[in-house]
Amino acid sequence: MAQHKNGASLPPSGSREKARTLVLSLQDEICSGLELLDGDGKFQEETWERPEGGGGKSRVLQEGKIFEQAGVNFSEVQGEELPPSILNQRPEAKGHPWFATGTSMVLHPRNPYLPTVHLNYRYFEAGPVWWFGGGADLTPFYPFLEDARHFHRVHQKACDSVSPELHKVFKPWCDEYFFLKHRNETRGIGGIFYDYQDGSGDIYKGQNSNGKAASISKELGSQPRSWNELFALAESCGKAFLPAYVPIIEKRQNKSYGERERNFQLYRRGRYVEFNLVWDRGTIFGLQTNGRTESILMSLPPLARWEYGYKAPEGSRESLLTELFTKPQDWLTDSTLEEKCQLYKAIN
Amino acid sequence: MAQHKNGASLPPSGSREKARTLVLSLQDEICSGLELLDGDGKFQEETWERPEGGGGKSRVLQEGKIFEQAGVNFSEVQGEELPPSILNQRPEAKGHPWFATGTSMVLHPRNPYLPTVHLNYRYFEAGPVWWFGGGADLTPFYPFLEDARHFHRVHQKACDSVSPELHKVFKPWCDEYFFLKHRNETRGIGGIFYDYQDGSGDIYKGQNSNGKAASISKELGSQPRSWNELFALAESCGKAFLPAYVPIIEKRQNKSYGERERNFQLYRRGRYVEFNLVWDRGTIFGLQTNGRTESILMSLPPLARWEYGYKAPEGSRESLLTELFTKPQDWLTDSTLEEKCQLYKAIN
Repeated sequence: MAQHKNGASLPPSGSREKARTLVLSLQDEICSGLELLDGDGKFQEETWERPEGGGGKSRVLQEGKIFEQAGVNFSEVQGEELPPSILNQRPEAKGHPWFATGTSMVLHPRNPYLPTVHLNYRYFEAGPVWWFGGGADLTPFYPFLEDARHFHRVHQKACDSVSPELHKVFKPWCDEYFFLKHRNETRGIGGIFYDYQDGSGDIYKGQNSNGKAASISKELGSQPRSWNELFALAESCGKAFLPAYVPIIEKRQNKSYGERERNFQLYRRGRYVEFNLVWDRGTIFGLQTNGRTESILMSLPPLARWEYGYKAPEGSRESLLTELFTKPQDWLTDSTLEEKCQLYKAIN
Repeated sequence: MAQHKNGASLPPSGSREKARTLVLSLQDEICSGLELLDGDGKFQEETWERPEGGGGKSRVLQEGKIFEQAGVNFSEVQGEELPPSILNQRPEAKGHPWFATGTSMVLHPRNPYLPTVHLNYRYFEAGPVWWFGGGADLTPFYPFLEDARHFHRVHQKACDSVSPELHKVFKPWCDEYFFLKHRNETRGIGGIFYDYQDGSGDIYKGQNSNGKAASISKELGSQPRSWNELFALAESCGKAFLPAYVPIIEKRQNKSYGERERNFQLYRRGRYVEFNLVWDRGTIFGLQTNGRTESILMSLPPLARWEYGYKAPEGSRESLLTELFTKPQDWLTDSTLEEKCQLYKAIN
């Protein structure tokens, strides 16, 4: 395979079609799985075109049995020159027309015992430059250690099927990306996140050179990888989504709740709004550059609450969520987590 | 009065104390007026200190009779060097320690017929440089032309009492500042907004050199003004708040509403969240620079709703709000507004 000056290979022929086919089939597969799970709600689809080139298919399920709202987007967009926010990270792309395709999704279940979840897999090309990005992360409102472990385990396996180094970097990268600095909290219990995967050099290509993801990546050293391997990664992780999420819903969906739990869920959904509107680069970039607003903001919850000075009662499940489940944890390897959880009342 | 190189005068002695006294008395006066108006809710006060220097008094009224939530902040902060976002606008302040004091307020009434309102008056010093900023803007959920006119009329008079040119610039400046680009909507019916008023040169000192505020300001030409005049402006506008807002509440507070109106209010509150978290420079600056999060986010509504693809029914009061009351209008001079409003059903 031909190499360009940065050591990464050129994309194989048919790369855009392969990437498009993958994200479209992920959208289809996940929507079917979610309709089956919900048993009642159906996705409504809207297709749209972008005046500057490209378009998409937005699917939304509203007022289902399980899902208060579920949005699953596909988009394929192109343009003459990438915006500065991306060119800073990919200077080799300067002066080239670009192409991007991806699927993204946020699910807001009604029952506060069911976690909100987000997924996004995307592929970029600009002249000789290409990269993959994506991930999935879970945001519970009530803390269940085994659910957090399950979600991480399935994603770890999906990454490991391509290469055992990847998950070591993508897991802390997720904690660092989905972080609310103004609250000193992670958005939830994380999962995996990666970006700018062009097959060259270190695995971590994010902006936080002092973080854990960067340091683990440096220790692992240069990890060249082919386009096909990174395609297989997106495929493997994308297909891991339903097995990572559905069993959690099946297990908790009939758990009854009251006003206290609903109020806490709505309050924590406020944090989801804060993250997406203040910190999420994708959302802000989309809103500031004439993206399709309704599709971008499908990630926001149908209802959210703010309360000045709220503090969870000491020792409560709500404080366990706040104190342990919104801080980065080694969910799969830290054997002290059970004991820590047991310091809080009524975990289940 | 001494002049520095930009033509603006140096601040008079005791300037910081005068500014602090003004904003503290505005906070007191407005809180008293609002408690009287609410008749039930009382403000709870928290004082706080900022590790980097300064502190504040945050007052919040929750679950009142009129106000679902009302937050009125005072803060006084100082630091070694202003952040780049401000230095871009005030390069003369570079290298000087700075001081800022201000009061800010957002009121979220429960009844959807009562408008949300925001106020902020602030004063900055950095070495030889000083400036005043502030304003107030109204965000109705249901459209009442006479309320919009009343709010604007009272603020126009307050500006005119200092100088008749000011309101001509501050009114369009408000429309331009409180604008959601991603929705092509103003946040509400506006009011007044001004910033960087240091007494030198043109009245408009904002970032949008192609806007109406800039062009009117250019036509008016250089308008030198003393510290005392700009202090009087803040005082006059600040004291205009209760007479601008209270009569609207008194007039509409007993109007009964149902689920439709509440739902539309919560939906429109989502826009308030979007503006504050995506576009409001003050909020974003505060969150990204270790401000007191709970005080900054007191501006967010206690409950907000999002709905994918919502469209107001044609000809309805909700569509009147969306089509006419979230676009810049010459509320005080445009005599076609009555007729335009009458094209929509059941305005009152």
